[in-house]
Amino acid sequence: MAKNFITREQNYSQWYNDLVVRADMAETSDVRGCMIIKPYGYAVWEKMQQALDKMFKDTGHVNAYFPLFIPKSYLSKEAAHVEGFAKECAVVTHYRLKASEDGKSVEVDPDAKLEEELIVRPTSETIIWNSYKKWIQSYRDLPILINQWANVVRWEMRTRLFLRTAEFLWQEGHTAHATKAEAIFEAEKMLDVYAEFAEKFMAMPVIKGVKTPNERFAGALETYCIEALMQDGKALQAGTSHFLGQNFAKAFDVRFTTKEGNQELVWATSWGVSTRLMGALIMTHSDDNGLVLPPKLAPTHVVIVPIYKTEEEYKAVCDMGRKIKEDLEKFGLSVKLDDRDTHKPGWKFAEYEFKGVPLRIAIGPRDLENNSVEVARRDTLEKESISITDLPNKVVHLLERIQENLYTKAKDFQEENTHYANDFNEFKKLIKKGGFVYAHWDGTNETEDRIKEYTKATIRCIPLNNKQEPGKCILTGNPSLQRVLFAKAY
Amino acid sequence: MAKNFITREQNYSQWYNDLVVRADMAETSDVRGCMIIKPYGYAVWEKMQQALDKMFKDTGHVNAYFPLFIPKSYLSKEAAHVEGFAKECAVVTHYRLKASEDGKSVEVDPDAKLEEELIVRPTSETIIWNSYKKWIQSYRDLPILINQWANVVRWEMRTRLFLRTAEFLWQEGHTAHATKAEAIFEAEKMLDVYAEFAEKFMAMPVIKGVKTPNERFAGALETYCIEALMQDGKALQAGTSHFLGQNFAKAFDVRFTTKEGNQELVWATSWGVSTRLMGALIMTHSDDNGLVLPPKLAPTHVVIVPIYKTEEEYKAVCDMGRKIKEDLEKFGLSVKLDDRDTHKPGWKFAEYEFKGVPLRIAIGPRDLENNSVEVARRDTLEKESISITDLPNKVVHLLERIQENLYTKAKDFQEENTHYANDFNEFKKLIKKGGFVYAHWDGTNETEDRIKEYTKATIRCIPLNNKQEPGKCILTGNPSLQRVLFAKAY
Repeated sequence: MAKNFITREQNYSQWYNDLVVRADMAETSDVRGCMIIKPYGYAVWEKMQQALDKMFKDTGHVNAYFPLFIPKSYLSKEAAHVEGFAKECAVVTHYRLKASEDGKSVEVDPDAKLEEELIVRPTSETIIWNSYKKWIQSYRDLPILINQWANVVRWEMRTRLFLRTAEFLWQEGHTAHATKAEAIFEAEKMLDVYAEFAEKFMAMPVIKGVKTPNERFAGALETYCIEALMQDGKALQAGTSHFLGQNFAKAFDVRFTTKEGNQELVWATSWGVSTRLMGALIMTHSDDNGLVLPPKLAPTHVVIVPIYKTEEEYKAVCDMGRKIKEDLEKFGLSVKLDDRDTHKPGWKFAEYEFKGVPLRIAIGPRDLENNSVEVARRDTLEKESISITDLPNKVVHLLERIQENLYTKAKDFQEENTHYANDFNEFKKLIKKGGFVYAHWDGTNETEDRIKEYTKATIRCIPLNNKQEPGKCILTGNPSLQRVLFAKAY
Repeated sequence: MAKNFITREQNYSQWYNDLVVRADMAETSDVRGCMIIKPYGYAVWEKMQQALDKMFKDTGHVNAYFPLFIPKSYLSKEAAHVEGFAKECAVVTHYRLKASEDGKSVEVDPDAKLEEELIVRPTSETIIWNSYKKWIQSYRDLPILINQWANVVRWEMRTRLFLRTAEFLWQEGHTAHATKAEAIFEAEKMLDVYAEFAEKFMAMPVIKGVKTPNERFAGALETYCIEALMQDGKALQAGTSHFLGQNFAKAFDVRFTTKEGNQELVWATSWGVSTRLMGALIMTHSDDNGLVLPPKLAPTHVVIVPIYKTEEEYKAVCDMGRKIKEDLEKFGLSVKLDDRDTHKPGWKFAEYEFKGVPLRIAIGPRDLENNSVEVARRDTLEKESISITDLPNKVVHLLERIQENLYTKAKDFQEENTHYANDFNEFKKLIKKGGFVYAHWDGTNETEDRIKEYTKATIRCIPLNNKQEPGKCILTGNPSLQRVLFAKAY
């Protein structure tokens, strides 16, 4: 257990927050609800961006950039959409400050009031579909497959680093299609991209499904999602992909001429993941010793720590450290040699363990004699002595093993914490314990609301390819055709 | 000359705007002063970002992210800074909308007024130095070398695509140092990085210099800049790097303990380039046939256009096109095969010429017989027949030649349009003609202001390593030690 560090058992919520801050991932700013993503945290986000951006481009998408501000009247054009976002909007009303009368401060210049207020984008469907109207005339202009990397603002009242912040970073895909089938195919394809990213890069198993009408994105006909299970037994929605039907095409009057010469409304999807994934990543793998990062998203794969007493030893182990660093870098690895003589090896061990560097290599004078080094895994804390000759291959192999092990461990945890409830008492007990609970539901909003009221659990999703199995709703006893996935959630 | 396209001679300003829109780089949005960066334009910006980001990291910088919003009181802490930015700030005053009484629209909820207004960042010195205060205690915490990729907002009244927009994308470096010398060294180093990027990637020659006090960044002690000359004879400031002294450390009370145990104020720099570089790139190289892009920043290096009459020919030339594409991609080139049968070769030629793709390869049935293709350069419009066997090496070589040629052409233009004025009449004539004009200036703000009033020319910079040459100010006749660089500017 790391020194002066709270355990998950003692207080999971504080453990998470302390971990994020102490591992230098992020901190709260003095601006209400906004976070500062620190360099180490941002380096992980950059790794996520690179992997996702490549996957988006490989599936035919291109990036573009639309304005930060949305005129109030645009946001209002789609009724369900504005209903969903109106209560958490940052509103720009003026465009100038002026010196106060006493000259000691600045104040908003009342003469610089905007004719129409501008909303800081909470999401960009409206501003983008206002453009698509001009870009789309014929079936030849379709599909449009655009993604945007951007910041968005939703004025959340209760915020937590990465998980829920007033400003966050994300990507939002916005696509336009000629047919309903093509749009649904796109929404499902991007859900698959998200699931693949979560499992292969984040080593985080997810359940793919669709949201109930209650939980749909404001303006969507269907919201697909991936749901992950955190170590405290709470679920986390890690990404969503929406089939928007023709709602935004209707709101912005976006029609196209078909091959046959008819005028039809365009079909839409949107999909996004955000810096919330950082929270998911941290909570999925980390332990009471600090952060644990999967190698595919770790900014530093290997840290090399020299062990020495004399000046001569320092020189010899650092020389070997530099050689090993060069050798490993040839394999595309990111390697840090911490040769600072201002910090002791023990301090460095603790530091990199806490920051979740997947592998640590220690080199002392005796290792030089034996032509070997000590390699420690962050995930299992196991150490082994490895011959320097074999090192690059072994390190590459170990990193692969760590990536797999983290996934397997998380998958096992998810399976161990997935239960089936057959009546409401059992359901309440299981939900209290934490984890995913599969149970029958009668399909109504009312029942969903009441279950939430009684237990704080929500329907995370109706899993895709869900087993059809007739039963009775745990609350009302009304007939049900399938179990759905419940959990308390972030 | 491209069809239905205005020439630079006819109307340079309209030529630029039409070019940006017709080449699908960007367009104005319905949000006052904000632009939409379209996928093709954004792909060029991504290339710029990648190259710059690598240069920043190679010089020891890391990325991070700070809040979009700045509390009004923070912006006010540095007097010159707030003076410089107060008049062009987007101000958030409320955090919620509500349904209007008739239920037909939404309006700002007066109950959701912020206690303190938030400014959408016009630049981030204040919000960042408010954090640095917490991050810096000792000399061991220095230097801090952080960069941020972000959007910023400055409420400009007259806007032009890429060159001046209310919202723009940029990077802003913010560094903290223990000594004055180190901070000045950093500011100068980053100016060199910008100059190297401009010349090596953008193929755009620049003059490095420092701004006069009149033109300094609000809060800086010295503003370094790179200045480029556009084809209409106007100068464009392409990047700035500021030595901020201890101004922000004073405003936010950021002190550190020196090795000797004393408390001292921290020294600062900031430096930035923005999507304005896109405007500079477009204006430097493009011609009456459309966009011209240097290969190092072109999203597509080579486009392959099949020429055919029969179905059989179509199949054969497309097969060869695919093979060539694969061969070229092995050399790290980005290649597009436009095998659409919905558009004629002539249309495609015009399209890619207008979009500035550096090389076009045309393949017809006769080429297949001769085992050769026709390769056309976008910069010179020259065509040559090249044997398919030699193609990859020749293409790589041609792209290097194009990159060099664009730089040489721009450099020659700059030299031809750089003049020396010895009295005010000569100066007025030369400024009217356009271009850079070196002239003596007495070093006062008043003279600078009056010259601007009479001629619209400003001092672009006092070049670094400027030749010392005693003379007389062109306006006042007062003594001067060196010539400075004047021009009308964007």
